[in-house]
Amino acid sequence: MTANPPPQATPSRTSDDERWMTRALQLAAKGEGSVEPNPMVGCVIVKDGQVVGEGYHAKFGGPHAERAAFASVADKQAIAGATWYVTLEPCCHTGKTPPCTDIILQSAPARVVVAMRDPFPKVDGGGLRLLSAAGIQTDCGILESDAQNLNQPYLIRLQQKRPWVIAKWAMTLDGKIATKERHSQWISGPESRADVHTTRGRCDAVIVGGGTASKDDPTLTARPPGPRIPTRIVISKSGRLKLESKLVQTIDEGPVWLFTAADGNVINALADAGVTICPIPGNSPTEDLQSALIKCGEAGMTNVLVEGGGELLANFFAADLIDECHVYIAPKLVGGTGALGPIGGDGLAKIPSQGQFEYVRFETFGPDLKLVAKRKR
Amino acid sequence: MTANPPPQATPSRTSDDERWMTRALQLAAKGEGSVEPNPMVGCVIVKDGQVVGEGYHAKFGGPHAERAAFASVADKQAIAGATWYVTLEPCCHTGKTPPCTDIILQSAPARVVVAMRDPFPKVDGGGLRLLSAAGIQTDCGILESDAQNLNQPYLIRLQQKRPWVIAKWAMTLDGKIATKERHSQWISGPESRADVHTTRGRCDAVIVGGGTASKDDPTLTARPPGPRIPTRIVISKSGRLKLESKLVQTIDEGPVWLFTAADGNVINALADAGVTICPIPGNSPTEDLQSALIKCGEAGMTNVLVEGGGELLANFFAADLIDECHVYIAPKLVGGTGALGPIGGDGLAKIPSQGQFEYVRFETFGPDLKLVAKRKR
Ligand SMILES: NC(=O)c1ccc[n+]([C@@H]2O[C@H](COP(=O)([O-])OP(=O)(O)OC[C@H]3O[C@@H](n4cnc5c(N)ncnc54)[C@H](OP(=O)(O)O)[C@@H]3O)[C@@H](O)[C@H]2O)c1
Ligand SMILES: NC(=O)c1ccc[n+]([C@@H]2O[C@H](COP(=O)([O-])OP(=O)(O)OC[C@H]3O[C@@H](n4cnc5c(N)ncnc54)[C@H](OP(=O)(O)O)[C@@H]3O)[C@@H](O)[C@H]2O)c1
Repeated sequence: MTANPPPQATPSRTSDDERWMTRALQLAAKGEGSVEPNPMVGCVIVKDGQVVGEGYHAKFGGPHAERAAFASVADKQAIAGATWYVTLEPCCHTGKTPPCTDIILQSAPARVVVAMRDPFPKVDGGGLRLLSAAGIQTDCGILESDAQNLNQPYLIRLQQKRPWVIAKWAMTLDGKIATKERHSQWISGPESRADVHTTRGRCDAVIVGGGTASKDDPTLTARPPGPRIPTRIVISKSGRLKLESKLVQTIDEGPVWLFTAADGNVINALADAGVTICPIPGNSPTEDLQSALIKCGEAGMTNVLVEGGGELLANFFAADLIDECHVYIAPKLVGGTGALGPIGGDGLAKIPSQGQFEYVRFETFGPDLKLVAKRKR
Repeated sequence: MTANPPPQATPSRTSDDERWMTRALQLAAKGEGSVEPNPMVGCVIVKDGQVVGEGYHAKFGGPHAERAAFASVADKQAIAGATWYVTLEPCCHTGKTPPCTDIILQSAPARVVVAMRDPFPKVDGGGLRLLSAAGIQTDCGILESDAQNLNQPYLIRLQQKRPWVIAKWAMTLDGKIATKERHSQWISGPESRADVHTTRGRCDAVIVGGGTASKDDPTLTARPPGPRIPTRIVISKSGRLKLESKLVQTIDEGPVWLFTAADGNVINALADAGVTICPIPGNSPTEDLQSALIKCGEAGMTNVLVEGGGELLANFFAADLIDECHVYIAPKLVGGTGALGPIGGDGLAKIPSQGQFEYVRFETFGPDLKLVAKRKR
């Protein structure tokens, strides 16, 4: 069962433009996990009220949505005068593939409808200007907020040079992640845990704190593998990662990074074992996390999944660096004033009057419920 | 938005009997809050594949479902040979109204289909036997588990002589009901709080512990009023209810009961002010709650709502006396190892391998999500 709260876009706007753009957005979303660090893009070509071609950017390095849509057209001569619907401004520069504006212009369209301008510096309005200059009618802003929501991780990386941060935890119906005796396995059921692996397999990194790395000795791989192999990241000022840990022992299954302020023999030995050592200043948790995320952004990461523990999540929360929460709630009660909640640290003094987040999706996995909430910005 | 997890009854069973019984169950549910301590009952009369009459038990003391359905029949002569669908075995004794079997027999039906036998001692199969003995075909057990789910509070009162216990709390997305500084107002939004008042207005009692009564000084009325006026109950071994509390000052707006092991002048003064003093043994929390609930059952209570605090909920949980949870989750994060969770006390040592509860409903109220979970028994 999947249920979504009322979407942000007004559902009563049912113009043709919005209908085709909705279709293009649905297509775009199919690229999730495979196109990053590129944006997800979908394209629908409409002639005389009929779809004559459609496509999406399916894989990083592969054809852009516009080329995929054009390739799907049966009679390429017959689409002169068509309207193109594209979820993101077409590119006008040569990257891994030639400019999309070329293929659009060759097809001699009457009109190009775009959901949102691409803030990527080499585009940034240039695609739309080029099409206009060629005498083609362009309209930008159709279902713009839907398109922005879809590509929030891409946009945050462009704007803030850091990846989109998803915080994940599993808790009981009374908000506990471990009992008073620190027993915690398993809170959620196998169906929820499988979903976590699916999320890992579309993320660029899975991040845990030094406490979790040393106490739980996790592997943090996506099992089965997804479209990408996440880098496994431990953030530990004091360098709490052991040579004999599963992370280091499985280094062949995916990169391991250690963000640390420590150095010396132990750190050198980890580096020799293949761990990428990333120095952090170690002066303030917020500054450490900001610098770690900038490093992730530089490495081309678009989505990272923070899996705990409570102290690391508290630091991400205190730094206002949580963009999305994935909360699995098991229909179990545990109780106990000494039991553990998902976010430790100091916490806020007052309950905020407005939620900092908003729900975007609810889904059941076996007996559990998964809530997805996004930071309101 | 309301979304329900897969129902327990197999949705592919679509026989006519189930179709009409489903309708009868929908009708029955309309009596919720108004018929207790009677069960909710619905009835549909079908002749030649057409509904010719339908009704439900709408109000305690008012006509039973069968009489309401019969009253709705336009041509009372024409329904000889009809099939009656009733969600609960028809009564065969004279209570506030004459036996329902009378009206059924007078109509000369061909068949009576019943979802479940009524365990009420004066019925308990007698209604079905009476109809059979009169030569009418009877079938019992169609959508039986749905009918049982609908009337769980009624059934628990018959079997265990106690009301159905709904535990309610509002928490943040990270499972907190108050910050480290004990700030807690408001976690959920006005829409959620209005829903709590709706629930209060269909329950027989709203219960809090001595801590909440003395720290929060709540009123615990249903605003606006619902179909019933809940008795406001404080459970406090030591008798922590003040003469000048809002509860005592608003005694004209609904009864106030104090379950306590204390006595003396203060308790006598409360009694003089109109508070019903209910003694509890005071030897063990579980025994106290059991005896308090038996007293509620004797007073005809079918549903009680326990609104906290954490210690009282912990005692209900430890005594395995929570039948249903209403959990409002605000899309807020608070964090803090010193922040409060909804259920205090000792809590369990280990995470249970299977959930003690299962979700039956999810609903949004403004920005919040409400989860309803029932105890698996
Ligand atoms: N049920 C679940 O879903 C779940 C998930 C994950 C973990 N857990 C449990 O949580 C427990 C671990 O949680 P925890 O709170 O003790 O530890 P943690 O959050 O995993 O790690 C805390 C450590 O991370 C490092 N760290 C955090 N923020 C940092 C920053 N900004 N800069 C530099 N270093 C930073 C520090 O490492 P150093 O001290 O090494 O410098 C800090 O001590 C384990 O028992 C685990 O089982 C449960
Ligand atoms: N955010 C929310 O949804 C919410 C809701 C309710 C309350 N709260 C907060 O919770 C706090 C109060 O919680 P709390 O845990 O301190 O107190 P509490 O649970 O309201 O009350 C505990 C007291 O109830 C009595 N009690 C509990 N179980 C009993 C039993 N089986 N037999 C006899 N007496 C029993 C005892 O009273 P005596 O000690 O008097 O004998 C005990 O000390 C308040 O600060 C309130 O604001 C928050």
